[in-house]
Amino acid sequence: MSKAVTAKSTSYAKWYTDVVTKAHLADYGPVKGTMVIRPYGFSLWDSVKETFDSRFKATGHVNAYFPMFIPKSFLSKEAEHVAGFAKECAVVTHHRLISNPHGEGLVVDPTSLLDEEVIIRPTSETVIWSMYKKWIQSYRDLPILINQWANVVRWEMRTRLFLRTTEFLWQEGHTAHATAKEAEEEAQKILNIYQEVAEEELAIPVIAGLKTEAEKFAGAEHTYCIEAMMGDYRALQAGTSHNLGQKFAKAFDVTFQTQDNREEYVYATSWGVSTRLIGAVVMVHGDDKGLRLPPKIAPYQVVIVPIGKTEEDISSILNYLKISIREFMDNGIRFYIDERIGITPGFKFNEWEMKGVPIRLEVGKRDMKEKIVTIVKRDNGEKIKLNIEGFASKIPKFLKQIQESLFDQAKVFSEKNTFCTESYDEFKSIISDTKGFVKCGWDGDPNTELAIKEETKATIRCIPFNGDHEDLKCIYSGKRAKYKVIFGKAY
Amino acid sequence: MSKAVTAKSTSYAKWYTDVVTKAHLADYGPVKGTMVIRPYGFSLWDSVKETFDSRFKATGHVNAYFPMFIPKSFLSKEAEHVAGFAKECAVVTHHRLISNPHGEGLVVDPTSLLDEEVIIRPTSETVIWSMYKKWIQSYRDLPILINQWANVVRWEMRTRLFLRTTEFLWQEGHTAHATAKEAEEEAQKILNIYQEVAEEELAIPVIAGLKTEAEKFAGAEHTYCIEAMMGDYRALQAGTSHNLGQKFAKAFDVTFQTQDNREEYVYATSWGVSTRLIGAVVMVHGDDKGLRLPPKIAPYQVVIVPIGKTEEDISSILNYLKISIREFMDNGIRFYIDERIGITPGFKFNEWEMKGVPIRLEVGKRDMKEKIVTIVKRDNGEKIKLNIEGFASKIPKFLKQIQESLFDQAKVFSEKNTFCTESYDEFKSIISDTKGFVKCGWDGDPNTELAIKEETKATIRCIPFNGDHEDLKCIYSGKRAKYKVIFGKAY
Repeated sequence: MSKAVTAKSTSYAKWYTDVVTKAHLADYGPVKGTMVIRPYGFSLWDSVKETFDSRFKATGHVNAYFPMFIPKSFLSKEAEHVAGFAKECAVVTHHRLISNPHGEGLVVDPTSLLDEEVIIRPTSETVIWSMYKKWIQSYRDLPILINQWANVVRWEMRTRLFLRTTEFLWQEGHTAHATAKEAEEEAQKILNIYQEVAEEELAIPVIAGLKTEAEKFAGAEHTYCIEAMMGDYRALQAGTSHNLGQKFAKAFDVTFQTQDNREEYVYATSWGVSTRLIGAVVMVHGDDKGLRLPPKIAPYQVVIVPIGKTEEDISSILNYLKISIREFMDNGIRFYIDERIGITPGFKFNEWEMKGVPIRLEVGKRDMKEKIVTIVKRDNGEKIKLNIEGFASKIPKFLKQIQESLFDQAKVFSEKNTFCTESYDEFKSIISDTKGFVKCGWDGDPNTELAIKEETKATIRCIPFNGDHEDLKCIYSGKRAKYKVIFGKAY
Repeated sequence: MSKAVTAKSTSYAKWYTDVVTKAHLADYGPVKGTMVIRPYGFSLWDSVKETFDSRFKATGHVNAYFPMFIPKSFLSKEAEHVAGFAKECAVVTHHRLISNPHGEGLVVDPTSLLDEEVIIRPTSETVIWSMYKKWIQSYRDLPILINQWANVVRWEMRTRLFLRTTEFLWQEGHTAHATAKEAEEEAQKILNIYQEVAEEELAIPVIAGLKTEAEKFAGAEHTYCIEAMMGDYRALQAGTSHNLGQKFAKAFDVTFQTQDNREEYVYATSWGVSTRLIGAVVMVHGDDKGLRLPPKIAPYQVVIVPIGKTEEDISSILNYLKISIREFMDNGIRFYIDERIGITPGFKFNEWEMKGVPIRLEVGKRDMKEKIVTIVKRDNGEKIKLNIEGFASKIPKFLKQIQESLFDQAKVFSEKNTFCTESYDEFKSIISDTKGFVKCGWDGDPNTELAIKEETKATIRCIPFNGDHEDLKCIYSGKRAKYKVIFGKAY
């Protein structure tokens, strides 16, 4: 591992890619636009997955798996949906390769052409609602609260690891309900889970709200979202929850018999978060030394670096730490012991800083003599010397501190760089320098929204809940504001 | 849920599909050859996954994720590998759909043709070894012990839920080692894990052994496998572990610097089990009432059916069971309470028998009066009345009994239907009626193997470990046997 990453101030984009690759989170795959999630990155994703999955299950959801192949015709069944996804679909047209009759290698066997082309899911509403049609007859079959963890494909020309790749991993929930009220409650319940996980586990402060018509999911009645500010002041959509109304039920003709014997279309929601969140963790918390991981999702919360040259040195240090390590285990602390020989402590320190491990525990011969250990906190670089006796029981407290401090730092950053203004000139200057979010009034007119986007590249990230717009004017038209909104440049 | 499944004796194939669909394990997807794994089936797969994953991790393996898209050219890099997979590859040729300019719906945009076609992984050796080339330089980078849980595609014309579908879920381990010895040990270690999980968790007795050259994995030095006998006497390959030698390292030019400064090709293994195992569980344990699930992997180990017509009835029964239910929770017993109103107990009993829940707990008013409960064991239908006081603490013992009894029944079945013979006539008669496996001598000649396959459709399922062949003659050629092997008709 080469030590240095490009400084954030030199190039934020290069810094990001350096951190992701040098911390061994991910690498580029051989097909353009694809990504390999390396074990360290996957372990992080597994933590994130686990924390979502347990919350989904606690609220009555179950997992299932639907095929990734969708008949081409399905995509056109819901009018808005097709417009949203047709332009970036991977299309399977053949099912066999043969030896090249005219030369080397393999060619597609022309006789293996499919009768109807198959697309790879960009999202699974269509295939799932085609199944719900088979499974739902009566109100007794409702609600269906299904989630799936899966790969999806949206063909991308420009790649950005975790943020924009042709294939990515995500969860997609797809629920079916007997009433509009229940579907709406579900969409909001999930948004709350998304916000809770982002803030409490990933230590990422988010703004929860409603998407405008222009920005909502292709096929939704309305879309809720959580938006977060990245280290370069851009917005990242970190999760979305859609109330689909009866749109997909109508597209796939899914009705049910109500308790009072009427025939009605089923109400739906869908919602998802993806490996994008790993990109958000990097961008919100990372610094010029690499990752800084929130303890709750860090694959290792503590890395133990015994400082010694020989195997004997190391084993005497590990012996010194024996009781403490036992205590780590008892307390469920995830730790790693870096016993490698022939690598300098400095190199190891850099490597574990790059990988963002919240606490580094250093012990050398001198510490053993003095009956102490040294811990170094990744959030602020603070070095603390502790008596060997009983220090292990203090680690959970330090981890909690680091978790909170990462959240607080991000919160301060996000608030400091969110500007309220009524002046469009000021708006343009903030946005053109990409120095943050603008909170302002909007007249609710899609044409206003479009004009601003064309002039500045800023989009309405969301209409935050409880935004008081009474006294506001629209930033663009000067008309009375219908909403208070957040503008920003987005990933 | 309609109650009856086709009897096994009427049609084993229909019985199988009935059980899989009526127990809500899986359903057919809209694209031919695809499968939907429904929540109950997915929960079963999750149990199986969890038990493998914890064993992989305990032996030092880590999870990662590689892209499903593979450049077409990669497939031809390893000569045997291409022959094995080219004929069943899904090929992506385009990346965009547009509105049909000549009519309705969507058509493939001809301008979105890819420069090089992309295939969807049938297995990931090629994409993974292209990455290992980047990651491996020195002996310090070895071993790499990576596993991935993923979907793969092998185009199938004939579908059989869980057993043969175009897309299926599996785990695939791909390890890289510095020595041939280490790779060989890894391949065997994994086979042991496969056998252990099959027998101890899935209650499926297996025969572990070596595949012949004709039956080994396309690209392996040699393939180990576990084979199991299904309820129709056919063989199912339940897991394979391959020693790949240096084949893929050579195909992808992956060398490393040894400790004594030589340049050498890396040694490899790969190994996998899939959702096929769910099919095996159905076929090995199921009966004419439906599934019978081994308690260790059953989504619910106990189903509680309160027998009453009104909500008051049900809530008084649940009150009666309150302490017992608390004890279930404390003991980590997975249970489900079927509180549905307006459905007869008989209907519920049939449904849970279909779903194979190991223990049904029935409680009615009369039981409450007598201070008892009734449990019904799914393995043998036995009804046992127990005093309410303290019965919950006996449940783990019953579950253990059921787990063992399912294994024992399958073991007896498999042994009873495995025949040792030296007569080819007898061999043909056993195989043509598909009445089981034949254990016999083989002269080791691939031509003999092929002739038998062509004449009888039986294949050598494996060369079991420690098979004593000293006094045996080849079943076909009459020559001195080189191996004692297991023949059978396979899924």
